Amino acid sequence: RIDGARLWQSLMDLAQIGATPKGGVCRIALTDLDRQGRDLFVQWARGAGCSIRVDAIGNIFARRAGQDDNLPPVMTGSHIDTQPTGGKFDGNYGVLAGLEVVRTLNAASVRTRAPIEVAVWTNEEGSRFVPVMMGSGVFAGAFTLEHALAQRDAQGVSVGEALASIGYAGQLGPAPAVGSYFEAHIEQGPVLENHARVIGVVTAALGQRWYDVTVQGMEAHAGPTPMELRRDALLAASELVLEVNRIAVQRAPHARGTVGTMELFPNSRNVIPGRASLSVDLRAPDDAQLLDMDAALRAACARIATERSLQITVEQVVYFPPQPFTPQLVQAVRANADDLGYSSMDVVSGAGHDAVYLARVAPAAMIFVPCDDGISHNEIENAAAEHLEAGCNVLLRAMLAAAEV
Amino acid sequence: RIDGARLWQSLMDLAQIGATPKGGVCRIALTDLDRQGRDLFVQWARGAGCSIRVDAIGNIFARRAGQDDNLPPVMTGSHIDTQPTGGKFDGNYGVLAGLEVVRTLNAASVRTRAPIEVAVWTNEEGSRFVPVMMGSGVFAGAFTLEHALAQRDAQGVSVGEALASIGYAGQLGPAPAVGSYFEAHIEQGPVLENHARVIGVVTAALGQRWYDVTVQGMEAHAGPTPMELRRDALLAASELVLEVNRIAVQRAPHARGTVGTMELFPNSRNVIPGRASLSVDLRAPDDAQLLDMDAALRAACARIATERSLQITVEQVVYFPPQPFTPQLVQAVRANADDLGYSSMDVVSGAGHDAVYLARVAPAAMIFVPCDDGISHNEIENAAAEHLEAGCNVLLRAMLAAAEV
Ligand SMILES: NC(=O)NCCC(=O)O
Ligand SMILES: NC(=O)NCCC(=O)O
Repeated sequence: RIDGARLWQSLMDLAQIGATPKGGVCRIALTDLDRQGRDLFVQWARGAGCSIRVDAIGNIFARRAGQDDNLPPVMTGSHIDTQPTGGKFDGNYGVLAGLEVVRTLNAASVRTRAPIEVAVWTNEEGSRFVPVMMGSGVFAGAFTLEHALAQRDAQGVSVGEALASIGYAGQLGPAPAVGSYFEAHIEQGPVLENHARVIGVVTAALGQRWYDVTVQGMEAHAGPTPMELRRDALLAASELVLEVNRIAVQRAPHARGTVGTMELFPNSRNVIPGRASLSVDLRAPDDAQLLDMDAALRAACARIATERSLQITVEQVVYFPPQPFTPQLVQAVRANADDLGYSSMDVVSGAGHDAVYLARVAPAAMIFVPCDDGISHNEIENAAAEHLEAGCNVLLRAMLAAAEV
Repeated sequence: RIDGARLWQSLMDLAQIGATPKGGVCRIALTDLDRQGRDLFVQWARGAGCSIRVDAIGNIFARRAGQDDNLPPVMTGSHIDTQPTGGKFDGNYGVLAGLEVVRTLNAASVRTRAPIEVAVWTNEEGSRFVPVMMGSGVFAGAFTLEHALAQRDAQGVSVGEALASIGYAGQLGPAPAVGSYFEAHIEQGPVLENHARVIGVVTAALGQRWYDVTVQGMEAHAGPTPMELRRDALLAASELVLEVNRIAVQRAPHARGTVGTMELFPNSRNVIPGRASLSVDLRAPDDAQLLDMDAALRAACARIATERSLQITVEQVVYFPPQPFTPQLVQAVRANADDLGYSSMDVVSGAGHDAVYLARVAPAAMIFVPCDDGISHNEIENAAAEHLEAGCNVLLRAMLAAAEV
């Protein structure tokens, strides 16, 4: 069993770096605060007897040697970069749960057959540099190292420059094989809390399609323009918002449909909006359903455009296929939660995680624990110490089993 | 009859001051371009034998003496400030139609009993300084001179400072009596064009109630948050947008309901909007109907808030009562259009105009002429020379009758 108090203390210690007045953390990828966080992790991992390797996109791998170091490692990890108004647990939990597994094995003098590695993936959040999940994306070959290094932040600084400036531009080379990958993470949603379960057995991650939608109507003066002669872009956009919601609600329980952004032009009180630009985010557990939602979105846009005599363009800007996790590893998570007496339930990950990319190149699974009110990406993000401990115990058992095989 | 070519030429000459590449005009209130426009008008009016008076809010009155200068003047006018991307006709037409009336009377050596005055009202547009229709509002006592002078633009410059800097801070003193007031204006809407009429006989201006509405839900991650556990502020706002439209459509033909602005927080692609701020603009021809619409808006907000478990606050920020124009003057406009053989129809003014304030202190009426596609507050705003001429002929006849009585 892991040491819950030690895990909690390391979470609180790491959260000092970039701590915000409201109790959150602002530790943006590849800033000096990110460097300080990385340095602290490396110091802890070295203290726990690990060797450190950094790859060319800045991913850190802390390795605890196995009996047979030719075996591919059993890996765990997550990220320590945060949102600008992020919390203490998102990502950080997965990294420090991995460190706690290593410390627990040390204390118990367990020597696993396969080596154990704890990974810190670069720039998962994507707040400063797109794309999100950059480090794991490069590792899994979702896009090239060159593409990632060339990305620039709003100030024009490239990923390559930022990595060099914090001293985490590591070795070039192909990504090594991974025996299996586990990632512990707070749920970032309300399902576990609502069902009063401690462990979420993550069976898959939802597929995602993101869109830019533009509604082009005709701006006109709100006073002199009779209702029947309007081509109001916001009216059409509002119908579309309701339609996006309906598309997801009709495909309960796992489908999601969200309009997160909307910009109006000219955005003036007494002018009928001539143009509305909005984002659409559709998610579903399988590709056929996601394609069906795509078709429903496009049909709704076409219908609304015809009914309201305006133009609607739909451009897909992001696609993640649905990603099932590896059944044997998922079963290991489920069985170990049961063995340990923790209440659990099967869940899907609605969000992308580094594990979603790792699942492309290795057997992979995730372990969710509840967070208060499902709130994440927020300074008030919180999780119960006993739930974090429980998730880490499940991680320990699952990794041990995988490393002994 | 007025000289249509001369009227057109003066419109084109004035439009040189602040001309934009797309054929519009940017001549913001109390800027140096506004001063240049005012100077040109004053020069033209002096050239037509008028005396000039400027009041303390910068309204310019060009007076053509009558036989009995103790009689209150028959006044016409409008404004020459424009929107940032304004046109050549909005406001400018009403001022230059007044000048054309003076020039026509001069050419025909007509001496009216009452004096004739052409007014240039300060800051009708309200783009730089709120409130809109500032000069006519002070003149009519809708708010105080001190209040108006103290308003500041986005750079912190006050109306008083800006007036002084362009040399149009005139004499203090009570507003003099006005015998009657006429204002010619482009319609800024599509009704006349749709009915193929040349003259709009404006019977009244719609009452207006403007609101700030805030929908407070709960922001959450778009991926992990199931549809049924969301408190999506945009979803509620979208229902409200459709409701505002319905409230007006159900009260056809004159009621209007518009949501012109919307801001989302945090406005991020994969975050369910936690807050939506929107403006609502309701208009109706009579106060009872406007109050009924106010009640319907508030009821819709309450219903949506309950159904979606979120808070909606409604704050009224502007109120203009409906303003009927003076029946005898309205009839004079109608009869003169008929006499001159121009097709006409009764219309309401959906927008506020200086005449709406003048109607509080004097008998008043307006004359609308069509503008292309109903487009105004836009650089492509356009109107037919023959329609502008027709409106000016109606103005001439109506003013003559009023000045002879
Ligand atoms: N965990 C997370 O926020 N991933 C970013 C992409 C997504 O919205 O799923
Ligand atoms: N004519 C005009 O734009 N007035 C401003 C106030 C309104 O929206 O009616």
